Amino acid sequence: MTCTVPFTDSDRILLGHGSGGRLTHELIQKVFYPAFANPFIEQNHDGCTFSVASGNMACSTDSFVVDPIFFPGGTIGDLAVNGTLNDLACCGATPLYLTAGFILEEGLLLSDLHRIVLSMKEAAAHADVKIIAGDTKVVERGKCDKLFINTTGIGMVPAGIRIAPELAQPGDVVICSAPIGLHGITILSARESIGFKTMLKSDTASLNNMLGHLLTNIKEVHVLRDPTRGGVATTLNEIAGSASVEIVLYEATLPIPEGVKAASEMLGLDPLYIANEGVVLVILPEKEADEALRIMHRFPEGKEAVVIGRIVDGKPMVRVKTLFGGSRIVDMLTGEQLPRIC
Amino acid sequence: MTCTVPFTDSDRILLGHGSGGRLTHELIQKVFYPAFANPFIEQNHDGCTFSVASGNMACSTDSFVVDPIFFPGGTIGDLAVNGTLNDLACCGATPLYLTAGFILEEGLLLSDLHRIVLSMKEAAAHADVKIIAGDTKVVERGKCDKLFINTTGIGMVPAGIRIAPELAQPGDVVICSAPIGLHGITILSARESIGFKTMLKSDTASLNNMLGHLLTNIKEVHVLRDPTRGGVATTLNEIAGSASVEIVLYEATLPIPEGVKAASEMLGLDPLYIANEGVVLVILPEKEADEALRIMHRFPEGKEAVVIGRIVDGKPMVRVKTLFGGSRIVDMLTGEQLPRIC
Repeated sequence: MTCTVPFTDSDRILLGHGSGGRLTHELIQKVFYPAFANPFIEQNHDGCTFSVASGNMACSTDSFVVDPIFFPGGTIGDLAVNGTLNDLACCGATPLYLTAGFILEEGLLLSDLHRIVLSMKEAAAHADVKIIAGDTKVVERGKCDKLFINTTGIGMVPAGIRIAPELAQPGDVVICSAPIGLHGITILSARESIGFKTMLKSDTASLNNMLGHLLTNIKEVHVLRDPTRGGVATTLNEIAGSASVEIVLYEATLPIPEGVKAASEMLGLDPLYIANEGVVLVILPEKEADEALRIMHRFPEGKEAVVIGRIVDGKPMVRVKTLFGGSRIVDMLTGEQLPRIC
Repeated sequence: MTCTVPFTDSDRILLGHGSGGRLTHELIQKVFYPAFANPFIEQNHDGCTFSVASGNMACSTDSFVVDPIFFPGGTIGDLAVNGTLNDLACCGATPLYLTAGFILEEGLLLSDLHRIVLSMKEAAAHADVKIIAGDTKVVERGKCDKLFINTTGIGMVPAGIRIAPELAQPGDVVICSAPIGLHGITILSARESIGFKTMLKSDTASLNNMLGHLLTNIKEVHVLRDPTRGGVATTLNEIAGSASVEIVLYEATLPIPEGVKAASEMLGLDPLYIANEGVVLVILPEKEADEALRIMHRFPEGKEAVVIGRIVDGKPMVRVKTLFGGSRIVDMLTGEQLPRIC
């Protein structure tokens, strides 16, 4: 891609870019508006207005502090767009609008900011959402780490859709849409301080397109959740708690890539706790599973979707049936496995 | 106020509080849910759903990085609530919902976080809005400065209301709702590194109640803007640019408290560039001004409202008629007057 950038390779963010004055305006006009161009953000006001039809809306907010800000498969920017979109999609919503709040460290390279903003633009275009409002703050060198991004999303929930963790019930199965552990292991290996390299890349992706098709075609979907921080184990524990059901996973079916398996063994991590950014867990009645898989397999982000477990009557917990016929209970993540994963 | 807090005075934020696992859940259950209690946030999902009537909505986002996090008149928490509410109110909207995204520094005192969350609860209750979704991230010690808060707000714009900077037109007057400069000078004096004390306190306040009444009773309001970062001068320059009009201010009428005047002179600052957090500039036809002032004077946040200038035909700029009959042009803020004011 060729594009003319309005600054040199050595230009950096100054405190004045957060002043609200002339430098802030220049940053908005040269970097943010050209990337996010749409009639909403160009209202040039403290906020923006848009019209809605009556119905159910969903909203979700997430701040992104991932370290490093560039990693194989993505940037903090597309992660921030996809992460919030996916949270909306997991509420059964069609994502429409995002806001973006930037906290920048004095000294950040403008070219890095520009690259991140362009990755947000691409991710938003791919998912067909608009970034309609923004904010920029700058803090002194050493008072944040390069940049943090908050995205907040708004979407409409089509009539008749109700997705909620407490709807999981005995007779349901758990579908996992894609291989697990890729984002967490990629971030771990991209940290300069970890002397460890892999060929893996982050799975960051927007899931709203696939989930939209799923909800249009399958009557009864009970729960959708993306297992990000805390991984599959923590997410399923939350669901088991909300619905007061037991969730049984079959170790043999867990889609763990060889690279994730090898890295996890080396580092003493359990892939069930590793963060994912392009995976969704779909919980629905067993009779709907085949059709759901057929639909998901048509999308790149769901082509390896597989049933990994089922909901049964029992105490609220998650149990893994091991390859050798035994079983182990997997609890929520305790402590911190890897800070600043997203 | 007596309240039982679920932690001791020496408990601090750990990286694990941002893991998405057990500690994150504890923080949510013990600190956030009790303060923000409402059926939306308790949906316990990745996002939350709510129903809307068809019409115009407004949304606005702001990240708050103010230093210090506690200051005379407020905290980073009520500032974060009021700031975003006011941006919505300045779009002509009735604020309904807020999201809150926290970025916490490892080692932050839990009691400080709790105090801030309670100040958000109070500010939200005062303005009659609900905090419906949240997010918590934790970064390593030294990678942010205590805490940063993003708030994103959603409101409905009543039918028939249209407020926009480009609507300012010759024949309009500019009303300033309250004394200016209080927030900026208070923050400046609260910084430990500035050897300077005042009895002033921040004007942080929600303006939505007063502005709601104003819009119900006055047919033609053209522009509403809260002059935060960059102050009155920068905000009016933005409006002059959007509407292609000249704005003339009368120095004699500018509501600058003695304490702000004294501090500004000592520090070489111009109060017109100092940030405010409880002030709104109202631009409307001159014939509506008396009635608007009557309405605003009934509210504590508008009891000192006063006409400070008028819109005239001319080049897009802001000119101040001085006490001595001369005039000076005030441009947008250039550079940074005071970092991390909000």
